[in-house]
Amino acid sequence: MECLEDESCGRRLHMTFTRCCSCESLKKRLPFLQWLPRYSLQWLQLDLIAGLTVGLTVVPQALAYAEVAGLPVQFGLYSSFVGCFIYCFLGTSKDVTLGPTAIMSLLVFVYTLGDLSLAILLAFLSGCIQLAMGLLNFGFLLDFISYPVIKAFTSAAAVTIAFSQVKNLLGLQNIPRQFILQVYQTFRELPSTRPGDAILGILCIAILLALKWMKDHTSRPYRSMSICHRICYLIVWIMTTARNALVVVGAGLVAYSFHVMGSQPFILTGKTAKGLPQFQLPPFSEITPNGTRTFSEMVQVIGSGLLIIPLMGLLESVAIARAFGFTNILGSFLSSYPVTGSFGRTALNSQTGVCTPAGGVITGLLVLLSLGYLTPAFYFLPKAALAAVIICAVAPMFDLTICKTMWKVKKLDLIPFFVTFLLSFWEIQYGILAGAFVSIIILCYPIARPEIKVSDMDGLVLTPMSGLSFPVMEFLKDKIYEKTLTVSPPRSVTLDFTHVNVIDYTVAVGMADLLSEFKAQGVCLSFSALQPHLLRMLSSSDLLGLQNLHSLKTADPVFAQDSEDESTQPLLHNGIVSLP
Amino acid sequence: MECLEDESCGRRLHMTFTRCCSCESLKKRLPFLQWLPRYSLQWLQLDLIAGLTVGLTVVPQALAYAEVAGLPVQFGLYSSFVGCFIYCFLGTSKDVTLGPTAIMSLLVFVYTLGDLSLAILLAFLSGCIQLAMGLLNFGFLLDFISYPVIKAFTSAAAVTIAFSQVKNLLGLQNIPRQFILQVYQTFRELPSTRPGDAILGILCIAILLALKWMKDHTSRPYRSMSICHRICYLIVWIMTTARNALVVVGAGLVAYSFHVMGSQPFILTGKTAKGLPQFQLPPFSEITPNGTRTFSEMVQVIGSGLLIIPLMGLLESVAIARAFGFTNILGSFLSSYPVTGSFGRTALNSQTGVCTPAGGVITGLLVLLSLGYLTPAFYFLPKAALAAVIICAVAPMFDLTICKTMWKVKKLDLIPFFVTFLLSFWEIQYGILAGAFVSIIILCYPIARPEIKVSDMDGLVLTPMSGLSFPVMEFLKDKIYEKTLTVSPPRSVTLDFTHVNVIDYTVAVGMADLLSEFKAQGVCLSFSALQPHLLRMLSSSDLLGLQNLHSLKTADPVFAQDSEDESTQPLLHNGIVSLP
Repeated sequence: MECLEDESCGRRLHMTFTRCCSCESLKKRLPFLQWLPRYSLQWLQLDLIAGLTVGLTVVPQALAYAEVAGLPVQFGLYSSFVGCFIYCFLGTSKDVTLGPTAIMSLLVFVYTLGDLSLAILLAFLSGCIQLAMGLLNFGFLLDFISYPVIKAFTSAAAVTIAFSQVKNLLGLQNIPRQFILQVYQTFRELPSTRPGDAILGILCIAILLALKWMKDHTSRPYRSMSICHRICYLIVWIMTTARNALVVVGAGLVAYSFHVMGSQPFILTGKTAKGLPQFQLPPFSEITPNGTRTFSEMVQVIGSGLLIIPLMGLLESVAIARAFGFTNILGSFLSSYPVTGSFGRTALNSQTGVCTPAGGVITGLLVLLSLGYLTPAFYFLPKAALAAVIICAVAPMFDLTICKTMWKVKKLDLIPFFVTFLLSFWEIQYGILAGAFVSIIILCYPIARPEIKVSDMDGLVLTPMSGLSFPVMEFLKDKIYEKTLTVSPPRSVTLDFTHVNVIDYTVAVGMADLLSEFKAQGVCLSFSALQPHLLRMLSSSDLLGLQNLHSLKTADPVFAQDSEDESTQPLLHNGIVSLP
Repeated sequence: MECLEDESCGRRLHMTFTRCCSCESLKKRLPFLQWLPRYSLQWLQLDLIAGLTVGLTVVPQALAYAEVAGLPVQFGLYSSFVGCFIYCFLGTSKDVTLGPTAIMSLLVFVYTLGDLSLAILLAFLSGCIQLAMGLLNFGFLLDFISYPVIKAFTSAAAVTIAFSQVKNLLGLQNIPRQFILQVYQTFRELPSTRPGDAILGILCIAILLALKWMKDHTSRPYRSMSICHRICYLIVWIMTTARNALVVVGAGLVAYSFHVMGSQPFILTGKTAKGLPQFQLPPFSEITPNGTRTFSEMVQVIGSGLLIIPLMGLLESVAIARAFGFTNILGSFLSSYPVTGSFGRTALNSQTGVCTPAGGVITGLLVLLSLGYLTPAFYFLPKAALAAVIICAVAPMFDLTICKTMWKVKKLDLIPFFVTFLLSFWEIQYGILAGAFVSIIILCYPIARPEIKVSDMDGLVLTPMSGLSFPVMEFLKDKIYEKTLTVSPPRSVTLDFTHVNVIDYTVAVGMADLLSEFKAQGVCLSFSALQPHLLRMLSSSDLLGLQNLHSLKTADPVFAQDSEDESTQPLLHNGIVSLP
């Protein structure tokens, strides 16, 4: 598929250019051009309902997730609306909703430790890196994170996030953020549980679970049902779907009532900055109590977060890297921390029957309205109620049942699963890195330890049964030494390369080492069925031991001919290349 | 090769036990039992010469390398003798010499920043980890570091180490340790070069180079030569072989003469602790200006050094992990920092004609004598002379000529080479990690993007040409969608599994997703030539979309029969499994 002639090359370039600027291509780049001309009133109605529904979920969740990220509550909302508008223009799937998520909030906390400037800078840099990844097709890196690793990571994250909220649920104070210390300290502080917070928190969880159960067990109304029935169904549907908002508003009202009566049994969210965020450059330097932090120092503090956060953000889908990247970049100008696609709200959006990405606009407007008019009310939100919202949101992410399936399908996949799961409690980023590493090692094992047949009929012959790459070299050397140089007297050996169609530089160097070692010991190492391109690779490494091979090549007309005519790729099945 | 019967299992266990405790096995575990009984006077003579020669190299190098590790000079010597004695008992190769090396010293500095307690603790922990790696066969991890990565790493380390000594060579002060800042600051400070240090340093380098050149260009004396000739040769041989010691002693004498005359144009090493190190526990906690550092805090500071340092220490040979591990553990009780095999001194040992590992004992004694009697003299060693020793020791490690060979052998291997080389200047550990990562990605590329044949004769058939593992799933999904669900109307497809003999859990889940997606769209996804064990794997993952396959399996007697009789592994070449 290469450009063979200048003319055809030019024509192709022209075609590519035309295609790029054509109407079709523009529609592909700006997908809203596809649905906007066909937009109808009926679609608007459905988008409106879906947008409102998602909005009623995202507002309480955003407030709660900001707490997970260690930031003031309003930053959850600042992070929630940019994605809705951007995705409306650049999104290809009608369902996806962008915004703060539980896992992303946890990761943001891990890398920024609640430092606001770092979190916003991280959003900006993540956006840039995601755009670059999209352009350079670096999304293939995500292919190397296997499903067991993702599942183990999300399960561990669910436990970590849920447990981090127990302190808010029970009104405990001075609890550290590191998971193991947190568990220890939480249990130690259990006697100092504040009864008000605990009762409210557990009640909220109970209500959320009950409403969730109702939603799952209410059948859709039939057409033949009475209007009264239908209205009942509608009320139940609204209550169950907007249950997060319901619980948070309810808890806020209770707290307000206590406030009016002059007592306050709950820990409240407290004063929240009012209004919309200012549009300003993301912070490229920061003033801390210990002096000014420069950009490079900030980047150093974030460290590997610059790899993990953009990658995690794209885990859902690399195809929308562009939308994710722009959202994070633009968001960082509006004080947003890194966001990504939310599985939960995307599913909700889809179930509610959204028709186009325009649903996101409604959601975004709802968030903006909350920011504009509701911030004074946030003062009265009890932290225990927000904790209940988080716990119920992340609980379904914890899923160890796949272990049973993995046991049946492929037991080896349990290793990366448990490595990821357990290490994630130590440091969440080490969990995913170590899990990916273990799965890659398992993947490469057959390359590193290929089958090598040993036959000793007339003369010792070793036959590797597949291509040779760098991880195999030490193993192959040991195998050859074991059979030849460590026996007495040392034996000659032939390497049968019938099944070898690929080698690399490490193998070429290793073969040269072997040749000189054999020469020093006065025994013979020869190759048989060496394919011409491999012979060329071996002989073009101008290493001591291979010069003989090289001279042999030029001496033998068969090789020269072979290297001219590559297309037929004749194998030297019986032509044995040997050292004198 | 599994234990099938209890009896044979027991017999094998008994045999293993007998073998473990036999004389042969003891000799294998304590290799000195092999050569000690045969030890002769002639061997002693040769070992003595080799031991002295290596000793005369290791003493000046150890003093210099301690400077690279950011520690006082005597710690180089403390680190030099333990390995000599341990290796004498546990070593299998007569040539290998253990001790401080340039690269290890650099790495120790990177992870401990010149903190002595951390360096000693690191030796202890590295030893433990190396022993564990040896026992658990974790040395295979090193197989995944390819030759280009090692070469790039050592070349970059050579540049870093050599450049770090320029400041000592020229007598510059207040130069930072981070490479890029160092280069910048060194050039900026160039005008404040101290002439004394610069002249001495450059003179030392010139002498070292000249002596090296002489060594390489002096031919061995013939038997027929006169005694006078032979004595001349001997003098030249001693001078060239012990050139490091010669230069350091000479420079020391010059500095001492200036001292006696009442002026001092050189920066000297200064006061050095006298005598042998005390035998004491490695420091498991540390008192710093900011309070006491606990063990876990020290471990946290070392961080990834706990992986990198033991691995680098074993890079030379995993086979002697035991000797390396014991040396580091015992060394840490004698204030040693992490050591490993030295390529340079091992080669010297071999060239000088060492006969047994007993040569190391002589080297070790020489180091101990230096510690006992020469420490007062170390006061007068000019830092510029030590810098010259280091620069000449690491210069041969810088080797970019392999790029030319790689270009000819396999151009793709240049990528990990340059990634490692360039990143190593930023942070040496990131260089090697990123290089290993890139080579593994190149290695896995054919697994992640296998050939998939598309035929459209009667019905669409996709045929993956090799086994399917997790990195392939997204690619395969996209490929299938592209051909079926994104065209209108959606098309049915058959996956031909003729060449697929392995799948994993991620692929099983991916296939289930595909099946349910196809079902939702009302088109058919079927499998052909599915091998029985793969069918079992797919159907035992109790996922929604696969239930149909499962029911089909039980319905079809052919499958049931196949799964009973695994040994023949019949392929269902023409039996197409399809969804209703």
